[in-house]
Amino acid sequence: MQAGEALGLILKLLPLKVPREVFLPVEETLGMVTSRDIVSPEDLPAFARSTVDGYAVRAADTFGASEAAPAYVNLSGEIFMGEKPGFVLMKGSACKMPTGGMLPDGADAVVMFEHVQPVDKTMIEVLRPAAPGENVIQAGEDVKKGATVIAGGHRLRPQDIGACAGIGITEVHVYERPAVSIISTGDEIMPAGSSLEAGQVRDINSCVLSGMISEAGCLPRKKGIFRDEYDMIRAVVESSMGDSDVILLTGGTSVGIKDMIARVIDDIGNPGVVFHGVSLKPGKPMIGGIVEGIPVFGLPGHPAAVGVCFDVFVRPVLKVLTGCRDKLVAYRTTPVKARLSKNVASAQGREEHVRVSIEEKEDGLWAIPVLGKSGLITTLVKADGTFVIPINKNGIETGEVVDVRLF
Amino acid sequence: MQAGEALGLILKLLPLKVPREVFLPVEETLGMVTSRDIVSPEDLPAFARSTVDGYAVRAADTFGASEAAPAYVNLSGEIFMGEKPGFVLMKGSACKMPTGGMLPDGADAVVMFEHVQPVDKTMIEVLRPAAPGENVIQAGEDVKKGATVIAGGHRLRPQDIGACAGIGITEVHVYERPAVSIISTGDEIMPAGSSLEAGQVRDINSCVLSGMISEAGCLPRKKGIFRDEYDMIRAVVESSMGDSDVILLTGGTSVGIKDMIARVIDDIGNPGVVFHGVSLKPGKPMIGGIVEGIPVFGLPGHPAAVGVCFDVFVRPVLKVLTGCRDKLVAYRTTPVKARLSKNVASAQGREEHVRVSIEEKEDGLWAIPVLGKSGLITTLVKADGTFVIPINKNGIETGEVVDVRLF
Repeated sequence: MQAGEALGLILKLLPLKVPREVFLPVEETLGMVTSRDIVSPEDLPAFARSTVDGYAVRAADTFGASEAAPAYVNLSGEIFMGEKPGFVLMKGSACKMPTGGMLPDGADAVVMFEHVQPVDKTMIEVLRPAAPGENVIQAGEDVKKGATVIAGGHRLRPQDIGACAGIGITEVHVYERPAVSIISTGDEIMPAGSSLEAGQVRDINSCVLSGMISEAGCLPRKKGIFRDEYDMIRAVVESSMGDSDVILLTGGTSVGIKDMIARVIDDIGNPGVVFHGVSLKPGKPMIGGIVEGIPVFGLPGHPAAVGVCFDVFVRPVLKVLTGCRDKLVAYRTTPVKARLSKNVASAQGREEHVRVSIEEKEDGLWAIPVLGKSGLITTLVKADGTFVIPINKNGIETGEVVDVRLF
Repeated sequence: MQAGEALGLILKLLPLKVPREVFLPVEETLGMVTSRDIVSPEDLPAFARSTVDGYAVRAADTFGASEAAPAYVNLSGEIFMGEKPGFVLMKGSACKMPTGGMLPDGADAVVMFEHVQPVDKTMIEVLRPAAPGENVIQAGEDVKKGATVIAGGHRLRPQDIGACAGIGITEVHVYERPAVSIISTGDEIMPAGSSLEAGQVRDINSCVLSGMISEAGCLPRKKGIFRDEYDMIRAVVESSMGDSDVILLTGGTSVGIKDMIARVIDDIGNPGVVFHGVSLKPGKPMIGGIVEGIPVFGLPGHPAAVGVCFDVFVRPVLKVLTGCRDKLVAYRTTPVKARLSKNVASAQGREEHVRVSIEEKEDGLWAIPVLGKSGLITTLVKADGTFVIPINKNGIETGEVVDVRLF
């Protein structure tokens, strides 16, 4: 089965359930997704503010003013930051005010210092006419009471959190980050901190997956390392269904163990295994299933295959589960264009993800294939990203431009 | 002064001090930067492993084998995952083994099941010759003991953390994230949670800055809101020098208060203010200084100007302070190309950052300028990103392609 088709089956079978909602202090929600529209409880600003240092005036008093024939207005009072003016600005008068200060009643424009000439302590000449509203932010001009400031399904950015603060909203409804269980399997797998006996290796994949899950805005839940035994694996998958939105199994590179993992997924619930094996390199033995509404993936054991299968199958599912409706999400990780430094062959009939390092040369970027078996973690460490050879091509030639998705 | 020139002065005066180093559990270091080379204490894998399900053999026993004239080898034992073989593979024999299993002494290749025909319970036919090393990952092939796995100055990605786990490294030396103080100033500024009197507004900028600092991989330290008084501001800047790598002041939109902030920076230490005012819109009143080796910025009070000045001046300084030597960092935030939906004029002699929303149309992406004064937070909320009109251009015409940096 082609990878795209396999993913399509999983996405089609994903239940249309709404992610869980939580109510959190807005400052803790950077990068989370709003679950409801955020509606302003008040006008922002609550009063007309000056955008310049200058004199508040009644615009009509300045109509027709010019350097040759200035308008004369009387000085009456001064406005200070953060204070409500204690007076009404009368016809024919002006008051000094700072940027951000509140206009007094009666005033409808602000003249900048540069366009004013003092006459004496009680009077100024205004050298240019001011239009009504000039250099003023009106009450409610930024946000009107009752207006939707941020729609539901929006990933919160720094300025969105600033806007909430501005309208006095300190807690918001957001979708809980999806929780993803990581179950490592394999009789030879030991925790990272242990010293090894001959024949044993340490658990690399759960660390790689944990980082990828965090970077995707979700919560990794490491469930530990389990022996390749049906009852053990079934028990941990079943218990993980209670606290996870997605379950990932990693390990089990041999065919017999892959089959056992598929059997666990089939036996626990419906529909069970949706695909088993895809035309993808690395990642051919990938298993995808859904059990009682929860996607369960059996990832290959090789680190490079784990990375590719996460990108191809798991990441798109997580994106749906975050509740994010960002229309520009595809543009946020624009691949870089680079020329391939050597021919890379690929068997027709499978989609191949090739690891490359990137070199900046005088004539632009070059993609250097990182050679090595997909069981080696260092090929991923040396690589800066991957490019894809589509299923219907049997290779890419030296000098061709490829789209590299950077890690 | 041009913005680029102003930034250059700050970068030139930045002291060449090494960021502080911390020793942390590797799983807590995702996105942090290594402060030393990470050297492997052992070979990975520690033993020769099979990469397939099949039979371990002595390659020489299979030389010349073909379907017509197979090589006959005796079955002797079986290897299980995670176990050290308890025997030496003798000449003329083979043993069954799983993917990832440890090769017995004597064996130097693995033949896949597909290339083997069972004869009886004690013997198999090998139908193809195996080359020495075929389907085997050699001891140390992934990482050799003493080899540098990850260089210093590298931002740790999920696969890098996996590699550390693989070689048994559970704690690593990384640079501490730079700490950035945020000092809000203004007699009219109130905390987000407060109800307002007439003339007061809430503190938006510290929330915007806090998010931008976090996204840049640094630690925001909010110092609170301070009145526009020399002694108060000086005291909080001086106390922040003890716990911050960078100090940001925000607020003070009026000229008098900007001048007071510049005086504080000059009075505390050398060299003091490096630039005051730049040819940038929004962001003209920006102040940059260095005090006893610590960069201190006086950011404008308008939210849109705060965002632009953070990008233009603060972000490049933070990048230096993280210790990251990622050569590809510029490619990780590739701007999107979009056509401008309407003429935008700009005064020659200043660099203008224009907020736009992005629309996907049938003929590609279009950038729609978001109109509104730079004092409005909602212009930033409605915008998807910004593009820059360079200092020597007086505008961009409808239909021209612009590079939009997405928020």
